[in-house]
Amino acid sequence: MSAGWFRRRFLPGGLLPAPGTPRPRASPVPYRRPRFLRGSGSGPGTADASRRPDSRPVRSPARGRSLPWNAGYAEIINAEKSEFNEDQAACGKLCIRRCEFGAEEDQEWVTLCPEEFLMGHYWALFDGHGGPAAAILAANTLHSCLRRQLEAVVEGMVATQPPMHLSGRCICPSDPQFVEEKGIRAEDLVIGALESAFQECDEVIGRELEASGQVGGCTALVAVSLQGKLYVANAGDSRAILVRRDEVRPLSSEFTPETERQRIQQLAFVYPELLAGEFTRLEFPRRLKGDDLGQKVLFRDHHMTGWSYKCVEKSDLKYPLIHGQGRQARLLGTLAVSRGLGDHQLRVLDTDIQLKPFLLSVPQVTVLDVDQLELQEEDVVVMATDGLWDVLSNEQVARLVRSFLPGNREDPHRFSELAQMLIHSTQGKDDSLTGERQVSYDDVSVFVIPLHSQGQGSSGH
Amino acid sequence: MSAGWFRRRFLPGGLLPAPGTPRPRASPVPYRRPRFLRGSGSGPGTADASRRPDSRPVRSPARGRSLPWNAGYAEIINAEKSEFNEDQAACGKLCIRRCEFGAEEDQEWVTLCPEEFLMGHYWALFDGHGGPAAAILAANTLHSCLRRQLEAVVEGMVATQPPMHLSGRCICPSDPQFVEEKGIRAEDLVIGALESAFQECDEVIGRELEASGQVGGCTALVAVSLQGKLYVANAGDSRAILVRRDEVRPLSSEFTPETERQRIQQLAFVYPELLAGEFTRLEFPRRLKGDDLGQKVLFRDHHMTGWSYKCVEKSDLKYPLIHGQGRQARLLGTLAVSRGLGDHQLRVLDTDIQLKPFLLSVPQVTVLDVDQLELQEEDVVVMATDGLWDVLSNEQVARLVRSFLPGNREDPHRFSELAQMLIHSTQGKDDSLTGERQVSYDDVSVFVIPLHSQGQGSSGH
Repeated sequence: MSAGWFRRRFLPGGLLPAPGTPRPRASPVPYRRPRFLRGSGSGPGTADASRRPDSRPVRSPARGRSLPWNAGYAEIINAEKSEFNEDQAACGKLCIRRCEFGAEEDQEWVTLCPEEFLMGHYWALFDGHGGPAAAILAANTLHSCLRRQLEAVVEGMVATQPPMHLSGRCICPSDPQFVEEKGIRAEDLVIGALESAFQECDEVIGRELEASGQVGGCTALVAVSLQGKLYVANAGDSRAILVRRDEVRPLSSEFTPETERQRIQQLAFVYPELLAGEFTRLEFPRRLKGDDLGQKVLFRDHHMTGWSYKCVEKSDLKYPLIHGQGRQARLLGTLAVSRGLGDHQLRVLDTDIQLKPFLLSVPQVTVLDVDQLELQEEDVVVMATDGLWDVLSNEQVARLVRSFLPGNREDPHRFSELAQMLIHSTQGKDDSLTGERQVSYDDVSVFVIPLHSQGQGSSGH
Repeated sequence: MSAGWFRRRFLPGGLLPAPGTPRPRASPVPYRRPRFLRGSGSGPGTADASRRPDSRPVRSPARGRSLPWNAGYAEIINAEKSEFNEDQAACGKLCIRRCEFGAEEDQEWVTLCPEEFLMGHYWALFDGHGGPAAAILAANTLHSCLRRQLEAVVEGMVATQPPMHLSGRCICPSDPQFVEEKGIRAEDLVIGALESAFQECDEVIGRELEASGQVGGCTALVAVSLQGKLYVANAGDSRAILVRRDEVRPLSSEFTPETERQRIQQLAFVYPELLAGEFTRLEFPRRLKGDDLGQKVLFRDHHMTGWSYKCVEKSDLKYPLIHGQGRQARLLGTLAVSRGLGDHQLRVLDTDIQLKPFLLSVPQVTVLDVDQLELQEEDVVVMATDGLWDVLSNEQVARLVRSFLPGNREDPHRFSELAQMLIHSTQGKDDSLTGERQVSYDDVSVFVIPLHSQGQGSSGH
């Protein structure tokens, strides 16, 4: 994406036609649940408004089907918020070709010549909004984008240190020294590949949705295991945590209009035309009214982390760019997340004001050096969409994990059982551990990834 | 500053005349050392090229003159890098009027009616570049800007919770609830005042330097004690740390072209005209050459924290926006810091390319809740310009502090002695603690602020 592209796409007088109502040329993306749920013996997973929250079914993979590393998975659809479950999930092996064979039939080499391939594993959660299409496309596409991006740099990844030139040829004798000075490591190439893959996937989703006349967007949370490290890439408000006997470690942070306030206000400062005179860039404790005119009220602008007072002018009475607090915070009165995939067509209701320029598709990537952890039997990563974290804190989830796993060591399905149990804990069951009845009315999806086994007992190996 | 102002000021075709060679209308800012060094019995503090680094004099306040909280101070000028000591320092009482009396003579009320005033203390270090003028102006001005900004919000600062309206009047019955929900505390007003004061001071420096036909810029590191908290505001590469018996805690982080790479690249992405076709926004491990054309080389752009490879095109051979590594990193080949005050006229040598649009004057503010620390006799804050930190790590400084203070409890000048000792440690003295001879050829200035005494034995109270 170039600056010129940004200006043509989003600013008045740009050369590209503003994308109006899309004209469908392709068939719509069909609704589906994750492939690995096939045969799990439940319906298509659409919402049933007649069901009480605590009687909706929790779905998990069929008992005969195991996920990479014997990971557990469970999901539940919202009560009646939307017709479809807008969450999606994907997981599988990542098989990265180390050499360019150039032909598809060379895929068979995977069994004959494994040293020509780099093997990894992939788990992903997508939380859709405005319809299920973007999340389904992301679940179908992102791993392919990632494999392509990794294959483009794999020769650098398997080197002791990524070479200045991908060919490995030294143009300048001091090339390795410069790479050393910049501190560039193999893992930086994986981080770069994840960043590029999210962007590529976002472009694919934009094209596909436009072609099929559909709309929508989704968050994306991805865990990738590669060369002894676990990479967690997050764009949105899902969350991953590491739970060990003595430690709870966040592996991601959330991107919402609140957490990205300064970036979003800054863009509106640079390109005020994006607000079309309808919104104010400034943040106030509440929306201002006529009575506030002339008063000195609390506010902050893009460059401030602190607060100050300003004398209220008429333009301050406009609707705020970011409004509301916590779970209620909205970007342009419309969206609760500030990073993710899709939303290329999204506009503020009854206006031509676009959301997309304020959204980032690039994830934040955290690296967990699994080989350096002294892993214990019950160390797991819990990944879940916001429906779980709205009602359970990291500590509460950790307590549930620690109370469940030790008593179920012999159960080969224990991680799936644990994922189901976590979801049940969001459905208003009386929980003696948290001492509260908490109910999530959102879609909830959970992966529990055991780190210790790393594939033992899994068909993924 | 508005977006329109930014465009008119910095972009081609803007309405304001590009500031060319300034026409002096005022007399130049005279060179001086900090006021509190008067009577310390040394020369004017200009560099003497004939002196060896280890024989340049270290200056401290005269023994009869004590600083707020009995803080220690010491400074040394560089060997021959510049004619003047480009560091400056300031400290004193901050006296913030709580009511608007409106007349200057009411200043006498400070002794008669102290409850009408809020008292604080202020210590500041400024590290100049391109001449001493900006740092001198900052030392003369910033505390006044801060006092003004604090006085504008003081009624909110002394309230239990800052009111939505500065008048305290509730326009809407739920006003306090909104302030509560946003989590706005009195300290956020001090942070906001510091942020605004730095910006105001930057504007004053811009005007004054233009009027006097001078140039230059400076970093700014400020510590303010107010209502039981210590606020540390930093714009540049100076540093403050808290040293306790069992703890070394950074109170600031440095802002350099390296640490602010993504912000700077992002601006060049949004406004490519700022680079005038002479620089490339992309980062490479080293500057590229003709031989690299067509090769796939390591790079990263504004949205990336990881690295990837790209095929080198001709435009990639341009000089990089940010070039060099660590201490050598430069913005537009010119400047080693990315935040600070001044530099309004600074251009890349022999071009019209301005540095100022890439520089931020807004500081990052850290709050230390001094009242919540269980303070011990030897707990101090060490503030110093980069000349100290280039040769001593936080841990080394902490070891020097801990080895010095316990044996000198009875010495009323011990904090000044400690500041001098820290500076001597940068001058190539054999140091048994660090085991190395390390030499700083930069100006070095150090404050040592004791937290426990909080003014005992100080004329500042």
